[in-house]
Amino acid sequence: MGQIIDGKTLAAEIDKQTMTEVQKLKNQGVEPHLVVVLVGENPASQIYVRNKEKRASKLGIKSTLVTMNADISENELLLKIQELNQTEDVNAILVQMPLPKHIDAFKVTMAIDPRKDVDGFHPVNVGKLFEGKTQHTPIACTPQGIMEMFQKYHIDIQGKRAVVVGRSSIVGKPMAALLLNANATVTLAHSYTKDLAALTKEADILVVATGIAHFIKEDQVKEGAAVIDVGMDRDENGKLTGDVDFENVEKHVSYITPVPKGVGPMTISMLMKQTVNLTKWSI
Amino acid sequence: MGQIIDGKTLAAEIDKQTMTEVQKLKNQGVEPHLVVVLVGENPASQIYVRNKEKRASKLGIKSTLVTMNADISENELLLKIQELNQTEDVNAILVQMPLPKHIDAFKVTMAIDPRKDVDGFHPVNVGKLFEGKTQHTPIACTPQGIMEMFQKYHIDIQGKRAVVVGRSSIVGKPMAALLLNANATVTLAHSYTKDLAALTKEADILVVATGIAHFIKEDQVKEGAAVIDVGMDRDENGKLTGDVDFENVEKHVSYITPVPKGVGPMTISMLMKQTVNLTKWSI
Repeated sequence: MGQIIDGKTLAAEIDKQTMTEVQKLKNQGVEPHLVVVLVGENPASQIYVRNKEKRASKLGIKSTLVTMNADISENELLLKIQELNQTEDVNAILVQMPLPKHIDAFKVTMAIDPRKDVDGFHPVNVGKLFEGKTQHTPIACTPQGIMEMFQKYHIDIQGKRAVVVGRSSIVGKPMAALLLNANATVTLAHSYTKDLAALTKEADILVVATGIAHFIKEDQVKEGAAVIDVGMDRDENGKLTGDVDFENVEKHVSYITPVPKGVGPMTISMLMKQTVNLTKWSI
Repeated sequence: MGQIIDGKTLAAEIDKQTMTEVQKLKNQGVEPHLVVVLVGENPASQIYVRNKEKRASKLGIKSTLVTMNADISENELLLKIQELNQTEDVNAILVQMPLPKHIDAFKVTMAIDPRKDVDGFHPVNVGKLFEGKTQHTPIACTPQGIMEMFQKYHIDIQGKRAVVVGRSSIVGKPMAALLLNANATVTLAHSYTKDLAALTKEADILVVATGIAHFIKEDQVKEGAAVIDVGMDRDENGKLTGDVDFENVEKHVSYITPVPKGVGPMTISMLMKQTVNLTKWSI
């Protein structure tokens, strides 16, 4: 039976450290300030944004929600970002995705001041990550949270075979970069990959981010692997589940994250930690 | 016997296309202009720089060599780059590496205007490459030249297993990104990789950039693979050779690049092509 990586407890620990850091900053007269921009009324986005605001408030971080109508022009949004870039009191800017189709999301990402890019999605930050220049570089929160898990559970990375399934900009690619920087031999697999099982069976570290419920079965993992499940899927009964068939895979691995209470809770904690880091770096 | 990929002939073809593009620009009253900055008197660097100047001149590209003493301060170099960034007549800036140890090479790379970054090393360009946003993005010339080889020889990439050995910023990392963007399943191997032979034997496409003469032997390649040798090494007799044991590996593969006359000649041709592209994009 694999050891279950307790993301919820680890996230709480990180939040506690963040609160201490926030207090230190406040003692210096600095209040970390996160601005979240929400365009339109996507119900899922509204929940995500509310959760971020709640967490910020709990940790003593100032947060501001800027809401804009779904029919604003791209230029209006770009002007708003420019304004936030120039507002000294704003340390971190997050534009909630997805954006309405008439707005070029990459252009919006490019418009955020890299020093306030709390999601770590600006190409200059992505480039620095891939170059291994990670000092004072914001990095995508989900893979950063996974790295915290490896550290907390003393899971060795150097020299290990790591396979990342899914090549999104939010998870797969920055995950591959972080594992590479930690000296793993990294393979990035995706929808064009042939004979995926042969590949995942070689992985000492397997990170799965496909968005397909129970995509990874027990015959696709290596005995003793560490398996990280980034999925937030619904099973046939509408119950929240992951990309990994946890019940059966668990027996074969050394470490595994559950869904829920695995990777999920870490992301928002890393976002708060990164807000504080951006604030510290700006001083 | 594998088909030998003739880099020299392909490079000449690209040069011919570049000459046509230069002529078109000149007809519009625009002369592409590459500035090469050379700090100090490293003999190898002097040769590289001279070769670039010669090629530019042959293709009708204006080139200027800026030489600076080895003992200039980092700041003096940064100011020079700033000046070149602001000179409208300059389309492409290349700072010849390596730089003297007292100068932070990454800071210098960061200082070049990304729109004039003919080497494609600026992190914003690296980030765009990894995000698949490659339109009007300069990309490292050696891996770009290798992609031209795949295209010219109709070597399929999509869905193939690609292994890149060596993770430099100049070759390995951008190569991995380009192969990933072309839908290969990409593994990046390096000095910490264990059981490298097992990995390289799975590769349909194997790109080797280790700088170690004859590093890849015949029992390390898959039958029918396409093997690209980025090495420019010296054998025991001082003769120029590659990272692949060409004579023995050749028998097992479908395509292979020789050294010399393989990847080598492509890089400088891609540099000239990219100078012209930067010029076109700036109009």
